[in-house]
Amino acid sequence: MSAGAIFVWELLGTAVLILLGNGVVANHVLRKNNGHNGGVVMITLGWAFAVFTGASIAAPSGAHLNPAVTLGLAIADKTKWADVPIYFAGQLIGAILGAVLCWATYKLQFDDHPNRDETLGIFSTGPQIPNKAWNLVTEIIGTFVLVAWILLSPVYTNAMAEGGTPTFGNSALGYAGVAFVVLVIGQSLGGPTGYAINPARDLGPRIAYAFLLPIKNKTNPNWGYSWIPVAGPLAGGALAALLFLAVHNLT
Amino acid sequence: MSAGAIFVWELLGTAVLILLGNGVVANHVLRKNNGHNGGVVMITLGWAFAVFTGASIAAPSGAHLNPAVTLGLAIADKTKWADVPIYFAGQLIGAILGAVLCWATYKLQFDDHPNRDETLGIFSTGPQIPNKAWNLVTEIIGTFVLVAWILLSPVYTNAMAEGGTPTFGNSALGYAGVAFVVLVIGQSLGGPTGYAINPARDLGPRIAYAFLLPIKNKTNPNWGYSWIPVAGPLAGGALAALLFLAVHNLT
Amino acid sequence: MSAGAIFVWELLGTAVLILLGNGVVANHVLRKNNGHNGGVVMITLGWAFAVFTGASIAAPSGAHLNPAVTLGLAIADKTKWADVPIYFAGQLIGAILGAVLCWATYKLQFDDHPNRDETLGIFSTGPQIPNKAWNLVTEIIGTFVLVAWILLSPVYTNAMAEGGTPTFGNSALGYAGVAFVVLVIGQSLGGPTGYAINPARDLGPRIAYAFLLPIKNKTNPNWGYSWIPVAGPLAGGALAALLFLAVHNLT
Amino acid sequence: MSAGAIFVWELLGTAVLILLGNGVVANHVLRKNNGHNGGVVMITLGWAFAVFTGASIAAPSGAHLNPAVTLGLAIADKTKWADVPIYFAGQLIGAILGAVLCWATYKLQFDDHPNRDETLGIFSTGPQIPNKAWNLVTEIIGTFVLVAWILLSPVYTNAMAEGGTPTFGNSALGYAGVAFVVLVIGQSLGGPTGYAINPARDLGPRIAYAFLLPIKNKTNPNWGYSWIPVAGPLAGGALAALLFLAVHNLT
Repeated sequence: MSAGAIFVWELLGTAVLILLGNGVVANHVLRKNNGHNGGVVMITLGWAFAVFTGASIAAPSGAHLNPAVTLGLAIADKTKWADVPIYFAGQLIGAILGAVLCWATYKLQFDDHPNRDETLGIFSTGPQIPNKAWNLVTEIIGTFVLVAWILLSPVYTNAMAEGGTPTFGNSALGYAGVAFVVLVIGQSLGGPTGYAINPARDLGPRIAYAFLLPIKNKTNPNWGYSWIPVAGPLAGGALAALLFLAVHNLT
Repeated sequence: MSAGAIFVWELLGTAVLILLGNGVVANHVLRKNNGHNGGVVMITLGWAFAVFTGASIAAPSGAHLNPAVTLGLAIADKTKWADVPIYFAGQLIGAILGAVLCWATYKLQFDDHPNRDETLGIFSTGPQIPNKAWNLVTEIIGTFVLVAWILLSPVYTNAMAEGGTPTFGNSALGYAGVAFVVLVIGQSLGGPTGYAINPARDLGPRIAYAFLLPIKNKTNPNWGYSWIPVAGPLAGGALAALLFLAVHNLT
Repeated sequence: MSAGAIFVWELLGTAVLILLGNGVVANHVLRKNNGHNGGVVMITLGWAFAVFTGASIAAPSGAHLNPAVTLGLAIADKTKWADVPIYFAGQLIGAILGAVLCWATYKLQFDDHPNRDETLGIFSTGPQIPNKAWNLVTEIIGTFVLVAWILLSPVYTNAMAEGGTPTFGNSALGYAGVAFVVLVIGQSLGGPTGYAINPARDLGPRIAYAFLLPIKNKTNPNWGYSWIPVAGPLAGGALAALLFLAVHNLT
Repeated sequence: MSAGAIFVWELLGTAVLILLGNGVVANHVLRKNNGHNGGVVMITLGWAFAVFTGASIAAPSGAHLNPAVTLGLAIADKTKWADVPIYFAGQLIGAILGAVLCWATYKLQFDDHPNRDETLGIFSTGPQIPNKAWNLVTEIIGTFVLVAWILLSPVYTNAMAEGGTPTFGNSALGYAGVAFVVLVIGQSLGGPTGYAINPARDLGPRIAYAFLLPIKNKTNPNWGYSWIPVAGPLAGGALAALLFLAVHNLT
């Protein structure tokens, strides 16, 4: 697949992922919404099927949508290292675009909302109890589960046996499966830090919030925390790839 | 497929979609119900699996059930333009029929309910914050995601490769997939306008409410807003088809 | 398949269906439970996947588990009329057994619960607003959707093309599909009467409640209403079969 | 498959199952969490897709993850008796490891939480109304449903027909199916005892809680109850296997 095609599919898929993922939080947080105070089940279902929708659109490029997934696949020798920067660029720019579309969808609600302090949480994650080391541990563990599932479940092992591009589309588990895994990570591991588990998902919307979106009285974009949902997921994805390399020849 | 068959399948599928979709809102709104105040998770699950049920019944005609889907497929050259009016007619008449069946299911509850102002919202959508331009933007974005997913995910690309009628039935993604996409659109993009994302879904029940249903003390059917959930979804479906034509040859 | 095998599989599948379906209501109603006041989303999810579990166990007999389904399939010429009484017997006896197992699971909670008036609703349905004609309409419409989906969706049309026993197991839609349909019927049409949509599901547990279960201070089993969740579903299933016969040759 | 491989896959899969399953309860119970008081729908969804995630990772060993499943499969002659102790060891050690990872994920929340009495319930189950005989009945019935479904649904019968290792991966029902069954067992049978339905799931985290985790002011690990969620599930799994042997030759 050409670099341009990888870039376009990852950009499209990640834009849809972030539009829908940021959107469900906007629906919950902003007061003049049908889904106001919809709660944690709505939010985690929304993010799960945001992944389903974006990933099935981005099937041609393998539907990474996440630099931690791309890094894990590269370490596991399933994505070429030369393509990694193209994946990263499509994912980050797509995430910024998705955040802008989310803002447009909820423009009237942003204008109406009285508490501007809550608006950063629509776009990017933050810790319930700030502590750099343990917040990092939480993000590493969450992303480890995601990337370990992608590499070890029959989704990829079956696709590899068929010799094709590893993707979710060759298996009944596929796109619904990754949505189920993201659902449970959100419900089970998302309590302390909001389960970024994806550097583009967190950094792209934070950039959009800080520099692009015309929201009045914005709160501080919290750059001091912003490296944790980047570094933690990359470390978790890398560790999952090392586990995969260690165990995948067991029979 | 004959025009008559297209008409019948689209009518049946859309009637089931609207019976179930309007029904879940009736269950939530009307006070003497097991699901009274069931909440946004119940409502969005209900609409999602209303689409699942109606779409799998209407498999022979391709399960459009939505003029915005039909228009997008026609622009993308997957539905004949000559069939478009037949699809539209089946969808609109089916939607009216579904609204009548919903009223019959909840007849006693409609008679009992003290607040007649709430009854329009069971049948048709309305904005949380009225503003024609931005309400239109919200409906365009929501429908764009739906139709882009239908055209770009492996559901249709696989069906096309097999040469058959593009439909959800040829893929494990299929009908459950479109239900998941409608679930997340409702939870993530449905806050401001109630995610009509389908002209027949909104206009048919509004016609039934205004002219057919024997509900006492009905509220105003809000014709002034009624063109937005028609025009917005049609524009969103058309934009998604243009995106598809632009990118689908990328490899 | 022998009459004895039909009887055993339908009995097993219906017992599991009712154990789980009555169980989720017991969990919601009885006060000393982890799921006390779990709400309508829990109850409708519980019944939906009760159907999934029971139906996939009863695959060899076609997984009817419901006299309205058996009647509809017989009218549609997919089940032999001679087997119908065997199906009915297995379903009714299985439902009684399932209700007894539900009672055993929650024995301590039944003993503890202060309000014995609420215990009938764990086992059998009742109307929010009693009115024989309109309660019947609601049950007819709900069951019509269930049986129309079974007959018209690709689940059965595909199985028929393959010449095998019509069952859910030959299709990716299959057992998960019927669970999704039961979920949406509960959320969308279950408000007024509690969606019996199955004569055995309602009558079997009512018999168990009235005559078998050692619950103290039981409430009246409401025999005056008990024919509606029998007659309504049978009529709805028959109407769906007539629709199927009218439309299934359309192409 | 070698004993070492069975051990590793069962350990990995059970560790992921318990990390996610204990995690969703931690998210609900501990106060400084995004999912605090998320409720019973969140908890039962979390455990269901914890099983999905762990089981699809452990596909090579047949994804038992549960001594009651292993025992049932051995009685049904689908797992070699010589492998049973290896399965048990991998499951128990994996469960302990998963509990430790859950603690690490929520370390800051454990430190912050004012009510240390609630922390045992994150890791292991307990009865709402203590009564050894009836608590045992509840655990037997819940596990019976799980193992009966595994043995009787087309998941295993299809896999047996193909001659391969009985596993969920050969069927569209597969891993999602077992998640649906665990979901409904939780919602329908989990009220009285918290549905251990798995000796390793309960005993492993209890050992971790009692001896390994550095939680301050821990409550009593309730060893007096601890044998019930071990013995009940083993008995339920054995009974399901006996049912299977009795009925599986019916046609």
